[in-house]
Amino acid sequence: MSSNLRIDGARLVSRLAELSKIGATPEGGCRRLALSDEDKQGRDWLVGQMQALGLAVKIDAIGNIVGILKGQEEGPAVILGSHIDTVGTGGRFDGALGVIAGVEVLAALRDAGLTPRRDMAVIAFTNEEGARFHPDMLGSYVWAGGMSVEAAHAEKDSDGVVLGSELRRIGYEGAEQPGFLKAHAYLEMHIEQGPVLESEGGGLGAVTGIQGICWLELTLKGRPSHAGTTPMVYRKDPGLAAARINIFANELTKTIPGQLANCGVIRVQPGNVNVVPETVVMTLDLRNPLDAPLAQAEAAVRKFCAELSERDDIAISFRDLARFPATPFTEELIAGVEQSATELGLPIRRMISGAGHDAQMMSRLCPTAMVFIPSIGGLSHNPAEFSTDEDMVAGANVLLSAAWRVANA
Amino acid sequence: MSSNLRIDGARLVSRLAELSKIGATPEGGCRRLALSDEDKQGRDWLVGQMQALGLAVKIDAIGNIVGILKGQEEGPAVILGSHIDTVGTGGRFDGALGVIAGVEVLAALRDAGLTPRRDMAVIAFTNEEGARFHPDMLGSYVWAGGMSVEAAHAEKDSDGVVLGSELRRIGYEGAEQPGFLKAHAYLEMHIEQGPVLESEGGGLGAVTGIQGICWLELTLKGRPSHAGTTPMVYRKDPGLAAARINIFANELTKTIPGQLANCGVIRVQPGNVNVVPETVVMTLDLRNPLDAPLAQAEAAVRKFCAELSERDDIAISFRDLARFPATPFTEELIAGVEQSATELGLPIRRMISGAGHDAQMMSRLCPTAMVFIPSIGGLSHNPAEFSTDEDMVAGANVLLSAAWRVANA
Repeated sequence: MSSNLRIDGARLVSRLAELSKIGATPEGGCRRLALSDEDKQGRDWLVGQMQALGLAVKIDAIGNIVGILKGQEEGPAVILGSHIDTVGTGGRFDGALGVIAGVEVLAALRDAGLTPRRDMAVIAFTNEEGARFHPDMLGSYVWAGGMSVEAAHAEKDSDGVVLGSELRRIGYEGAEQPGFLKAHAYLEMHIEQGPVLESEGGGLGAVTGIQGICWLELTLKGRPSHAGTTPMVYRKDPGLAAARINIFANELTKTIPGQLANCGVIRVQPGNVNVVPETVVMTLDLRNPLDAPLAQAEAAVRKFCAELSERDDIAISFRDLARFPATPFTEELIAGVEQSATELGLPIRRMISGAGHDAQMMSRLCPTAMVFIPSIGGLSHNPAEFSTDEDMVAGANVLLSAAWRVANA
Repeated sequence: MSSNLRIDGARLVSRLAELSKIGATPEGGCRRLALSDEDKQGRDWLVGQMQALGLAVKIDAIGNIVGILKGQEEGPAVILGSHIDTVGTGGRFDGALGVIAGVEVLAALRDAGLTPRRDMAVIAFTNEEGARFHPDMLGSYVWAGGMSVEAAHAEKDSDGVVLGSELRRIGYEGAEQPGFLKAHAYLEMHIEQGPVLESEGGGLGAVTGIQGICWLELTLKGRPSHAGTTPMVYRKDPGLAAARINIFANELTKTIPGQLANCGVIRVQPGNVNVVPETVVMTLDLRNPLDAPLAQAEAAVRKFCAELSERDDIAISFRDLARFPATPFTEELIAGVEQSATELGLPIRRMISGAGHDAQMMSRLCPTAMVFIPSIGGLSHNPAEFSTDEDMVAGANVLLSAAWRVANA
């Protein structure tokens, strides 16, 4: 029976187009910052879609929206989910596609007259992007018990507006406790947000986990001096030291398997053409699918900086901006995603997720996996973010098949 | 007669202390931005000092203040000078010392009852620093005929205030044509503004010329991408290219004699920890005492950038910010400065000037040289700028001796 099960591709595409109108930007993207008026409109629309399917819709105290399809037995649910908030200059697909695919999976079951053994649910998590409130993945973090409701409610946006009051303002401070629905498994479909799938010939991704992250802020202090009157030997130039660190971190990626490195912030003070810099603040974003090589990369950077500091008399201090261990997903579920794609005749490859997702938080609670579809040009957090209808439908069919399998196992 | 001639050291120090009170800052420095109220007060004080000495005081159309001591014969004058404007967070010595030393030289001659063969004069040039109006060295540039009075009057500060109207407001738009006093020779005493003299054991500097300058602004464009989802091989990172250029320019200073290089501005866009940069704007300040090696350094940088652009697919464009050829001073006057120091028993070394000075403009008109005194810690454009009384007096005595020689030759 289940091998003929398919989502309604046209309905999936049409639902995404409808949601995309809410907060649509002239550039073709979306702006639905968490708990904004646009987010409220998107939430209202989503709740309407869930209710129309006959799902039991519940809202928890952090604003996570949960649509539940009752199964044949009592017990933990197979949960699908993602988020509908966007960054300030977001696209139409990031997050929204995963929520709508989840809704479509339950709609397809209803259309087929099928009731799963286990409960199934779709969750739209609050403030995944972190573009308005810190931290990112806040709704799923609270759901997984990583942060209290009170602490989350007290978070402020850059204008000082408090998260809890915004939740109440838009009517999404619900009565349920986050995590109230016990999880048997979690599956999330998402766009890749990178260039790998497209540039390697297309097809889907069976995500094996989320990279470990180490974000460091380095402050380098030298001695400001006149660029005309100070001989080179008397200078202490933190800009030059920053350049060496940037290149060193880049070279590390060639020797440590899976290692990524980025220096995205470089701020030079005082920043005059004829003044040798006094201070540089720079960031390093180090990532690796495994914790051990990530720690090795960080240690190598710190050792290089210590030697550079000693040699060039530049003071270098470090501050942790973020640090998350690698999150491996569950082999049985990854294999299930692969099997579903293969049964559907769809090419799929195993890959790591470069970005964080709500699945990262849900993996604290239950077996977890993800399905990626190609992002054209690797673009994301960008109005030009794009995935094809064909890939969206393929991904949603794999999600349906994999979810159906685990909901009945 | 002239070998016993000395300036009055206590009076020199006292005059500088008086001028330092005008625009004095809490940090111990001075703020007399060109044509500001503080500059006007400084000018009024200076004119008073000149008049008290019996000098003929004339103001030209760009506000240069000229105090003339008539000699025994008609003809071009031996001119001493510098400036009394400061940068926003300036010190007490930069510029002001040279003007006051010039005044003191003429005062010493008057005290000794000496009349030189040639006319002698002191000039305080307008807006040397360029901190308020562009370009720097504006008063001497106009004096030397490099820029018209009309063009200079039309310059605006960062608030849009026009130079000509500020000149009139403070009462320093004079009747004379800039350059009205023909120059036989120009001598300027100035603080070194660098660490060379102090760190090599003190003593004076006989300045052989002013370095050539090449200021370049480079704009590097890559492709912004997600630092987590984009494999290293897909990135086009202009921040990394900027780091390589900075290090390359620094390495050049080890192989091209006399070469200096500074990367003082590095601006990274968009400047997020997890975004591979899209654009970097950076500056290079290249200097050399000689034009040929300076051109060689610039050519090497451009070649390196062309190769880097090709290899890493980063677009690199160049914009000239400033370009001045090297200004060699006059051997006869440099030797005269050395001879004066030696006769006075003062150690002196030949050295290049790393910074620009009014002498650079005056050298277009006449034989020119400068005397440097040590800057403690190499500091300048800084409230902590400092030179000792002993060095100031030594420098002014050399200025007196050298000026007296050329005024009677």
